Amino acid sequence: MWVKRWLLGRPLATAQVSHERLSNPVALAVFSSDPLSSTAYATEEIFLVLILAGTAALHYSIGISLVIVGLVAILTASYRQTIFAYPSGGGAYVVAKSNLGESPGLVAAAALLIDYVLTVAVSVAAGIAAITSAVPALREHRVALGLAAIVILTWANLRGVRESGRIFAVPTYLFVGGLGLVIMVGLGRELFGAPVDHAVPSVPAVEGLTLFLLLRAFSSGCTALTGIEAISNGVPAFREPVSKNAATTLTWMAVMLASLFLGLTVLAYLYGLVPREDETLISQIARISLGGGVFYYFIQAATAMILILAANTSYNGFPRLASILAQDSFLPRQMRSLGDRLAFSNGILILGLCAAVLLVIFRGDTHALIPLYAIGVFLSFTLSQAGMVRHWQDHKRPGWRKALAINLTGAVATGVATVVLALTKFTHGAWVVIVLVPLLIGMFRKIQWHYRIADWQLALDMYERPRTPPPNVLVMPISGVNRSIVMALDYARRCGEDLRAVYVDLDPDETIKIKGQWDRWGAGTPLVILSSPYRSFLAPLLNYIETVRQEQPGVWVTVVLPEVIPARWWQNLLHNQRALLIKAALLFQFRVVVIDVPYHLGPY
Amino acid sequence: MWVKRWLLGRPLATAQVSHERLSNPVALAVFSSDPLSSTAYATEEIFLVLILAGTAALHYSIGISLVIVGLVAILTASYRQTIFAYPSGGGAYVVAKSNLGESPGLVAAAALLIDYVLTVAVSVAAGIAAITSAVPALREHRVALGLAAIVILTWANLRGVRESGRIFAVPTYLFVGGLGLVIMVGLGRELFGAPVDHAVPSVPAVEGLTLFLLLRAFSSGCTALTGIEAISNGVPAFREPVSKNAATTLTWMAVMLASLFLGLTVLAYLYGLVPREDETLISQIARISLGGGVFYYFIQAATAMILILAANTSYNGFPRLASILAQDSFLPRQMRSLGDRLAFSNGILILGLCAAVLLVIFRGDTHALIPLYAIGVFLSFTLSQAGMVRHWQDHKRPGWRKALAINLTGAVATGVATVVLALTKFTHGAWVVIVLVPLLIGMFRKIQWHYRIADWQLALDMYERPRTPPPNVLVMPISGVNRSIVMALDYARRCGEDLRAVYVDLDPDETIKIKGQWDRWGAGTPLVILSSPYRSFLAPLLNYIETVRQEQPGVWVTVVLPEVIPARWWQNLLHNQRALLIKAALLFQFRVVVIDVPYHLGPY
Repeated sequence: MWVKRWLLGRPLATAQVSHERLSNPVALAVFSSDPLSSTAYATEEIFLVLILAGTAALHYSIGISLVIVGLVAILTASYRQTIFAYPSGGGAYVVAKSNLGESPGLVAAAALLIDYVLTVAVSVAAGIAAITSAVPALREHRVALGLAAIVILTWANLRGVRESGRIFAVPTYLFVGGLGLVIMVGLGRELFGAPVDHAVPSVPAVEGLTLFLLLRAFSSGCTALTGIEAISNGVPAFREPVSKNAATTLTWMAVMLASLFLGLTVLAYLYGLVPREDETLISQIARISLGGGVFYYFIQAATAMILILAANTSYNGFPRLASILAQDSFLPRQMRSLGDRLAFSNGILILGLCAAVLLVIFRGDTHALIPLYAIGVFLSFTLSQAGMVRHWQDHKRPGWRKALAINLTGAVATGVATVVLALTKFTHGAWVVIVLVPLLIGMFRKIQWHYRIADWQLALDMYERPRTPPPNVLVMPISGVNRSIVMALDYARRCGEDLRAVYVDLDPDETIKIKGQWDRWGAGTPLVILSSPYRSFLAPLLNYIETVRQEQPGVWVTVVLPEVIPARWWQNLLHNQRALLIKAALLFQFRVVVIDVPYHLGPY
Repeated sequence: MWVKRWLLGRPLATAQVSHERLSNPVALAVFSSDPLSSTAYATEEIFLVLILAGTAALHYSIGISLVIVGLVAILTASYRQTIFAYPSGGGAYVVAKSNLGESPGLVAAAALLIDYVLTVAVSVAAGIAAITSAVPALREHRVALGLAAIVILTWANLRGVRESGRIFAVPTYLFVGGLGLVIMVGLGRELFGAPVDHAVPSVPAVEGLTLFLLLRAFSSGCTALTGIEAISNGVPAFREPVSKNAATTLTWMAVMLASLFLGLTVLAYLYGLVPREDETLISQIARISLGGGVFYYFIQAATAMILILAANTSYNGFPRLASILAQDSFLPRQMRSLGDRLAFSNGILILGLCAAVLLVIFRGDTHALIPLYAIGVFLSFTLSQAGMVRHWQDHKRPGWRKALAINLTGAVATGVATVVLALTKFTHGAWVVIVLVPLLIGMFRKIQWHYRIADWQLALDMYERPRTPPPNVLVMPISGVNRSIVMALDYARRCGEDLRAVYVDLDPDETIKIKGQWDRWGAGTPLVILSSPYRSFLAPLLNYIETVRQEQPGVWVTVVLPEVIPARWWQNLLHNQRALLIKAALLFQFRVVVIDVPYHLGPY
């Protein structure tokens, strides 16, 4: 227990929940680390596709970035509507389910669960890439470093949400400030006369510059938008008035995101940079703009920190969504409950585990994970916005037409983007998500179906309670006659009339001895001797229980197990092996009750 | 169950035990595979030491081999005495303990357990080396091949002893016949005028030819004697008259062992061979003597088979010794019992596991394992022979003086060899065994001490049986009101007067609902509502149990757990998480009885 306390901190009372609210600057850090940090790899992903058509194609990156910034503006306007309409948290699942129905809701839920896991894996992989760009010697340890980061994140989140906020505020602002400096210094020098001198490599084209290639570049850049919905999910974490605070924070976040993304893309283009295997694009930009040295390492450290901590958005979102799904019986019911620290411990642990598995499978490579990433996000964007369109049709408050128009724009824009993403990334990994979503939905439905049947079978409406209790035969297997046995016998004699001790005969001499001892200590309880031609202890006992049940149909059999409990854990290896075997064999037996009667040995 | 049957065969009845006796030829194969197979590496180990003093030193191998053959003769004569004195099996532990006392017995037991494990590891490693000598491409997979061999051996032995005998008879005789052919053909040609033409490499000396080096070479060659005691341990496995049959078989085995070992050493010397990394010495001898081709591959296959199967001696010996130790309470009592197939299943599994671990640690390298090997064998030889000397002093039958003289010779010879082994091999790995033996003895004594204290604490001699049973409070935690709960309630009402249902309040609305349902279905049983400020289900329940116990000192608390048992295993993930938590928390509680009342859901 104290280990748990030391690791996770004191438990928080339910009454403390309402105090676990975040101020706007802290909330900005907590919810924005995911979208802001994606600027660390979005530009590079665009360049990675365009470079296939040679260095000359790179100037399209500016246009593509502008389209994406346009999407940011549309989505921000859309989600501001959601925040005001759903002050208790308008995740895509809730919005889609309540407006469009259960099936679209489950599609959104499945897509979101997948993307929460991918956010953790991608962010951690990119964060480690920021570190290995600065310290190339660590490159070969990137999977181990990533796993360590996931373990630390999981631990921090099991501690609870407010401390998370504090942990994450500093790196987010360091990252924004640092990159802002890089962009301002870089652009200032390029525009006002002191351009940096650097070699511009010329990469030949390996593919033609087709529309499909441009759309693929756009799809890759769309990773910049991932996580933009986090604030609308987490509205209740804000201080009162929650909706207003959340909407303001969302706008701030969008402005920062657009500025950083656009600034970095323009700088990368002006510097004539190309993606490299061993160094990220953002590391190249920072190195050139600030000229290496201590500032450069500071930028890399801030980038690594915000990326690794960006995964925190998922640690807030995943368990919350899993809990909502569990309340609707789509996931196991134990995922409903809050842990001691106001965190949804089960969900946090599952998220950490899945992300760790992904990281190992993809060997910690960001580029390999990216194609799986954005498709789920955009699927949920689309369903969420479409749900809002229906919402305004049903709730015609003042100004509903304008709100509907905004959300309709959002739905169409993200819908088109989803189709583009699915088509251009399908063979690069998006098919995995397209296969996983229906599988997850199948699981949701199967679990809900099970709970429905179980609840129906357990319902008391039609239950005919027996007036007289069914007959009950108590069977106590004994391996000898000692205090533990006698104590269990005296206990069992109170539980029913028909008590029988059972001894499996493995050695005739021993059996005669036991019979004699039982005459003295058995208190008149009959002793049944079972023969065991195959020297098995278990089989004769199970056969005997079966015989009892066949003789008296409808009978309950209660097996009383005397157990010796030693004072130290390792001594358990020296006791109770038979009791364990018996319990394992009886676990799924019909109308068999097991009673464990402990006898505690003293320490010595 | 049928999987177990298919893997292990039908169970054998106790009455069948006496039929599981071995004829002399089969017994020779079963018990001799270990000592005979050691000729496959003993010569090479002598050469590996002598070569340090250069090629010129190799002629000492003949003298060293003659000394070892002398030891074989002495040990054979000694163990014939043991076989007649202990027809029920005279293992070193039994002989040393009954004649010299418990401590020497435990030293012998610890040494033997270690050597059984090493026999498996060394034999398997050497067997794989025989294969990779013929097929060099397999060399890099030698650890995997060794592990596969151990798995197959463990499986074969779980099936039972007679089938083992049959499996092992063929390769043993193929090996003896094949090597006999190699030696006869080889010696015949060298002596009668048609010597083989081959290159004799000259290796320079890297160490001086000291007495210490010669003793080290002797120590290495002593591995040829390992396993020679197997027959005296396994006397009861022979047909009547057991002692006579066993003694005859032992003599046959010794003659074969001495001939093969001496023949191979002489041939290796005549051929001017030196040890090589990638091919065993015996493989070189066979290749030269038979001139390669199909006969050569046949010899390698027979060598590999007898070596891998030699480990079988340990699979007979280890579980048998562990069972004897368990009967004396030096090992956990569950190791006493015969499994379904007249085999000591627990011991077989532990042996296989330990050998597999050793094989992996030493990367399947025979030479690295050898220095650990013989020291334990010779320690147990010495204790066993010394025990026999004391035996004849205590049992002065006709001819005891001659028997005593033989065993005294054996004790002195093996005692001197043990000291030589310990001194010359100490830094090469023998220290591991010298450290492990006292640790194992400490474990034996600790386990025995625990059982003594436990038996004393459980003894009924001084037990004052309570005349009136202690008070018993029944506590039934409920999470709702349904059929499973009502059924468990009706069951529990019969087990005692003082029954209380307990509900942990996590949501006030839900609690009011539960109260209403309980009024209808609770049958007058009081419902205790526990508040839970930290939303934990478990803590308030444990506190409540503690309160009950403090109010009534000496009270027993019986926790009744209603459990929903679904029809399919995976559905268990959706139920009973709380019951599991409760059981885990109550496992070691004093005077707390747990009753599991199952409610089976139907399949759908």
